[in-house]
Amino acid sequence: MVGLQVSNILPEISIKSHRGLYKTQFIDDPFTQLNNYGADKYFIIDKNISEIYKNELASVLKNPRHIIIEANERNKDLDCFSGYIGKLSEIGVKRDHTLVAIGGGVIQDITCFIASTLFRGMKWVFYPTTLLAQADSCIGSKSSINVAGVKNLMGTFTPPNEIFIATRFLKTLAPQDVLSGVGEMIKVHGIAGINRLSEMNTDYERIINDSNVMAEYIHKSLLIKKEIIEVDEFDTGIRNVMNYGHTFGHAVESATDYGIPHGIAVTIGQAMACSYAYKKGFISSGVFNLANSLLLKNFSTSRETKIQMSIFLSAIKKDKKNVGSQVAIIIPTNDQFKIEKRLVDADESFIQFCRTYFVENGFKVYE
Amino acid sequence: MVGLQVSNILPEISIKSHRGLYKTQFIDDPFTQLNNYGADKYFIIDKNISEIYKNELASVLKNPRHIIIEANERNKDLDCFSGYIGKLSEIGVKRDHTLVAIGGGVIQDITCFIASTLFRGMKWVFYPTTLLAQADSCIGSKSSINVAGVKNLMGTFTPPNEIFIATRFLKTLAPQDVLSGVGEMIKVHGIAGINRLSEMNTDYERIINDSNVMAEYIHKSLLIKKEIIEVDEFDTGIRNVMNYGHTFGHAVESATDYGIPHGIAVTIGQAMACSYAYKKGFISSGVFNLANSLLLKNFSTSRETKIQMSIFLSAIKKDKKNVGSQVAIIIPTNDQFKIEKRLVDADESFIQFCRTYFVENGFKVYE
Repeated sequence: MVGLQVSNILPEISIKSHRGLYKTQFIDDPFTQLNNYGADKYFIIDKNISEIYKNELASVLKNPRHIIIEANERNKDLDCFSGYIGKLSEIGVKRDHTLVAIGGGVIQDITCFIASTLFRGMKWVFYPTTLLAQADSCIGSKSSINVAGVKNLMGTFTPPNEIFIATRFLKTLAPQDVLSGVGEMIKVHGIAGINRLSEMNTDYERIINDSNVMAEYIHKSLLIKKEIIEVDEFDTGIRNVMNYGHTFGHAVESATDYGIPHGIAVTIGQAMACSYAYKKGFISSGVFNLANSLLLKNFSTSRETKIQMSIFLSAIKKDKKNVGSQVAIIIPTNDQFKIEKRLVDADESFIQFCRTYFVENGFKVYE
Repeated sequence: MVGLQVSNILPEISIKSHRGLYKTQFIDDPFTQLNNYGADKYFIIDKNISEIYKNELASVLKNPRHIIIEANERNKDLDCFSGYIGKLSEIGVKRDHTLVAIGGGVIQDITCFIASTLFRGMKWVFYPTTLLAQADSCIGSKSSINVAGVKNLMGTFTPPNEIFIATRFLKTLAPQDVLSGVGEMIKVHGIAGINRLSEMNTDYERIINDSNVMAEYIHKSLLIKKEIIEVDEFDTGIRNVMNYGHTFGHAVESATDYGIPHGIAVTIGQAMACSYAYKKGFISSGVFNLANSLLLKNFSTSRETKIQMSIFLSAIKKDKKNVGSQVAIIIPTNDQFKIEKRLVDADESFIQFCRTYFVENGFKVYE
């Protein structure tokens, strides 16, 4: 992608939370700002970012007030945190200091959890570096920590005090990680209704290829998410629409042994949800074709992946949103693309729907 | 102590918090209530309590929905929590369940921290069984967790949803643990002013010997604390008066290798604060004698303890409230017993004051 000058174009976004307002600002140059921070700032940096941007982050990396963490699931296990906190103590972190996270979702989860609990809470600032984090996870307060062998079993609701989005970090992402972020952007545009989804379908190629259009769509995606999380910060009601694509998507992640990036699995999950809604007559063929065309474009590179049906079905049946033996799926329920939760029986016809979907869409299905 | 019937006498106390109102109720019989809880309740129980009250808690202990933890500092280390959460998962705890803590401060800390973070927050109910927990720590939202070798470095502000105080648990406390709780009760009565302190001085022997009077004073102590924590739940301002007796007290705990229970060390800390205030002319001899007489009664059994001065002074100098090289002590500043923070130089005269205090009050001082 080419460089861009977005700070004068995209207005900041303020989000209401139980901790007060916090702001998301789009900036061109994160490095000058990061290198000039005072001695009250302690950095938690993605290892990959610290290597790719070692020259740009020279001053940050030169002073001892930072820790570097490899962004993987193992490193967001609760058992790692005494190590992180021991290291932070050692380099002098105090209650009135501010943690600065530079990285994607894993670094966000780790920093947010530490900021929620160290000294019973301290300030934190976030520089998201992945598209998933910039367009989706950076707002919404949540942290998710693995514990006792269970993914995301623990966490907190503690928004950062400030978020700075610099799309220049996206230039060094792998193509699959761009598509992964776009998958969550499609999701919120779907939630916003058929017109927004149609607009995104029209712009899809420009989003991928033009970083200014990408920045605009990150901004649009955050504005849509803001409306939902401000109403339901603690995820007890309408925020469940944000799980559109996720029941099927999480099961696809399990069934492919996490061989498909999260946002692409969520794209496949949305396509399955739309296909189910069309099959049940909730949406017309026109609406289905529009949504499906956009979704197919975004997961075309992940077709032919091997899907283990037994794992897929077992994951579907264990979804946290299920009620009794019924599976909770979040699907479009009319031609305005109104997203709602529906409970369905995980019977033979449902299982057959899933299997057929994978086969017809080019996945390699194993029982 | 003799049995008592307090539920009709002492009204419940409602406390405002960022999570809404929560209630503290005085009850006579905790066991019927505990044994009759439904399947949504999961118990975290002090090992000692589970042994002393094994008959009374028969139904609770018979079902698998409980874990038992020995109440010591080691067991409130962050590194223990994956074990606790693994066990809770194993016995079936879910997001809409309620944790029920039965024990003192350590069990409170552990349960509160789990309730703050498991499933990003769940409900919890507290049955405090020590006097320190009943008269002081049960309200105020705080949890304190050890990590990376540092005591209470982590924690959260998450009040229980309900608190049930049954003073019959106090019957099986060791005498030192009763005095420890009374030490914190004296503290809040001092904070409430000279008249409340004088009243408590008059009633001291009856508090220790008559469980009805004890229950009344627990109630009074919670009402005083309520006023402060409702104004400053997150401990950023006036709540620091609650540290009266604690700068000296924590240092006494360190210097005696935790050979003196917390609330008794805090009693000694209050006596030192009063002595310092009198020496500096902040309070008259009449007020000093009143306060000192009450405090002496409460730590008389802990005199003759060995105090290591080097450890005492090092702890004083590391207190979290200090500003630069000055030590923050919280002391009575006038004859109304107005408690305030004062910064003092940790110079030779201050050190001499501490040493002389210990020697004159019968402690065994080692350099």
